[in-house]
Amino acid sequence: MRRRAFMKAGFAGAVGVGLAPLNSPADEISTLFSPRARRADGPIRLSSNENPLGLSAAARSAIIEALGDANRYPGTPRGPVIEALAAKHGVTPNHIVLGNGSSEVLQMATQCAGGREVMVIVADPTFEDVPGYARDIGLRVEKVPLRPDWSHDLDRMRELTRDAIGPVLVYICNPNNPTGTLTASRDLDAWIAEAPERVLFAVDEAYFEFVNDPSYWSAQKWIGTHRNVLVIRTFSKIYAMAGLRLGYAIAHPDAAARLSSYASGNNANYLALVAASASLTDQAFAQKSLETNRTAMRVAHRCLTELSLEYLPSHTNFLMHRIQGDLATYNRRMREKNIQVGRAFPPMLGHSRVSIGLPEEMEAWAEALRSFRQQGWV
Amino acid sequence: MRRRAFMKAGFAGAVGVGLAPLNSPADEISTLFSPRARRADGPIRLSSNENPLGLSAAARSAIIEALGDANRYPGTPRGPVIEALAAKHGVTPNHIVLGNGSSEVLQMATQCAGGREVMVIVADPTFEDVPGYARDIGLRVEKVPLRPDWSHDLDRMRELTRDAIGPVLVYICNPNNPTGTLTASRDLDAWIAEAPERVLFAVDEAYFEFVNDPSYWSAQKWIGTHRNVLVIRTFSKIYAMAGLRLGYAIAHPDAAARLSSYASGNNANYLALVAASASLTDQAFAQKSLETNRTAMRVAHRCLTELSLEYLPSHTNFLMHRIQGDLATYNRRMREKNIQVGRAFPPMLGHSRVSIGLPEEMEAWAEALRSFRQQGWV
Repeated sequence: MRRRAFMKAGFAGAVGVGLAPLNSPADEISTLFSPRARRADGPIRLSSNENPLGLSAAARSAIIEALGDANRYPGTPRGPVIEALAAKHGVTPNHIVLGNGSSEVLQMATQCAGGREVMVIVADPTFEDVPGYARDIGLRVEKVPLRPDWSHDLDRMRELTRDAIGPVLVYICNPNNPTGTLTASRDLDAWIAEAPERVLFAVDEAYFEFVNDPSYWSAQKWIGTHRNVLVIRTFSKIYAMAGLRLGYAIAHPDAAARLSSYASGNNANYLALVAASASLTDQAFAQKSLETNRTAMRVAHRCLTELSLEYLPSHTNFLMHRIQGDLATYNRRMREKNIQVGRAFPPMLGHSRVSIGLPEEMEAWAEALRSFRQQGWV
Repeated sequence: MRRRAFMKAGFAGAVGVGLAPLNSPADEISTLFSPRARRADGPIRLSSNENPLGLSAAARSAIIEALGDANRYPGTPRGPVIEALAAKHGVTPNHIVLGNGSSEVLQMATQCAGGREVMVIVADPTFEDVPGYARDIGLRVEKVPLRPDWSHDLDRMRELTRDAIGPVLVYICNPNNPTGTLTASRDLDAWIAEAPERVLFAVDEAYFEFVNDPSYWSAQKWIGTHRNVLVIRTFSKIYAMAGLRLGYAIAHPDAAARLSSYASGNNANYLALVAASASLTDQAFAQKSLETNRTAMRVAHRCLTELSLEYLPSHTNFLMHRIQGDLATYNRRMREKNIQVGRAFPPMLGHSRVSIGLPEEMEAWAEALRSFRQQGWV
């Protein structure tokens, strides 16, 4: 039987809790396992939709326990993660494809879609990875503006697939990044149900766990019968593993095999795999992520309402809201307050995307925003 | 100033050093930082050319210190690694391209070579990644048998490039895996000097640091002037980071930019990056890797000489030697001794590739081999 790992550490400087020595072992353990929401030398990061809690304690312990194996190729911990994911999704292991972050899975999806003559259809704005990868390999990309309710314009996207003669890759980010908004799953289902197999759907559900809305469900229901649906998930958000790089696709075994042939060798690293196995068993952490996000989101909503700055309904761990004036100037001013908010997402240049940090981080952000209002800047 | 991390740990079970409690903090520190050459439940791994020392202590400390940041995307530690590599190689950062292991760099090289009409030329046998990636995307692969001295048959490879009309990718693994043998750098230089730009050379120098031979030098000398030379290195071998996945290319900035466009997003993970930065400053560790390899290689050589089993001259951390009889049977018998040796490398099915472990692991391997001889099996 493997014994539980206990740590005693003197990381005061490294974890940014001040320079006084830590005396109690318990304090030291909790310090080691606590996240570093703000680097001593860096800003509050509300820019990349990261989970501010840091890795779960179970994931941290698993990583430390595995350090003695990090000189080994990651074959050993790979199977157990695939099996755990298969069990979680009620499928067999040959329905699961791992990637170096969901970003690599999106790259694989773009590359496997059928070669140079593929038309790629994406929303505008949406997460930039698929259109970026498509352009890298010379594919034609069609951008379809979101509808006034910020959902994907599935009708217009569908029309474009009818115009295309060859293979089509349709990228659906649901909830959508950077808007945080939903596209009704019933509407997507209606399209998938009658789409020809030359239309490949890559449904990015990176923020799936944050959604609590009756109009939304996973596209996983299709993979039993449809070889043209890829469902893409990540450990970066709910499990706070953005730095470790682990994502996956759930797909029909034929589609999974096709997708896999575009994976790089040994693409999931040893420490990400052991952290993933640990995280999957730590449902309390996932729950805490949701609760923290809900509490911190309320702080943001309250401030925006108070300042009458409109915001989009978010089903994620980030929020898109109106600003007044120029976005680059706004971002610079936030940076002067030591707060980093999201990049520009054209064409929504009158909005800022703020990632939801810890409640106290959102208080700092709200304070900055109120001070901007006092200056007449927002 | 950042304080040094000290660890106190009770990992006896996890690191497989027995069940007795560890009392001295110093013991516990060294236990935490020591590698797990053999898993409690697994074989001695002499199969994947891994560095048996485990991560350097500096790399382990860096990983533990960075755990509080592993929820963040790995942008922060990426720049410093690129800068350190640029300094190490005497180039600018835009000559360096990171990959998720050198395996992803090899995939990028294969993909960037020029599309479906590319001819890929590789030695036979050689490391399987490039031919594998080439086949995945439908490229024609030409295999050229090694010469009797186990060097690449550059003349024959060169003739094939003359036959090709379109772009050609030439993969040169030097030293070559699985043979461990060298191709004279002067001969490769002569070819590169007069090759047209449509011939792209991917020179895999994964084992560069292990070579000590006057006929061998890096192909890096070409990247200042030649946009058709990619030099590929890894942190998996000399720095023992196979599980962490970090490799890179050194190339002309134009070639580097072209290669980069095939990289997956955020492809180097946070912990690999901090471990790489730490490892690059720990030259004592690199030296220890070489010395350990030399000592353990001598154990292997002595046994093979004693048993009159021919072996190839190795310039790496592995060794290719003759066996008698069937390779699959040999591998199964080694497995019964709890030793895992290399897979089959056709057409060299009368040879076994054994990775060089710790000296004591090679003693165990030698003992197994001697017992096989007593049975008349080798």
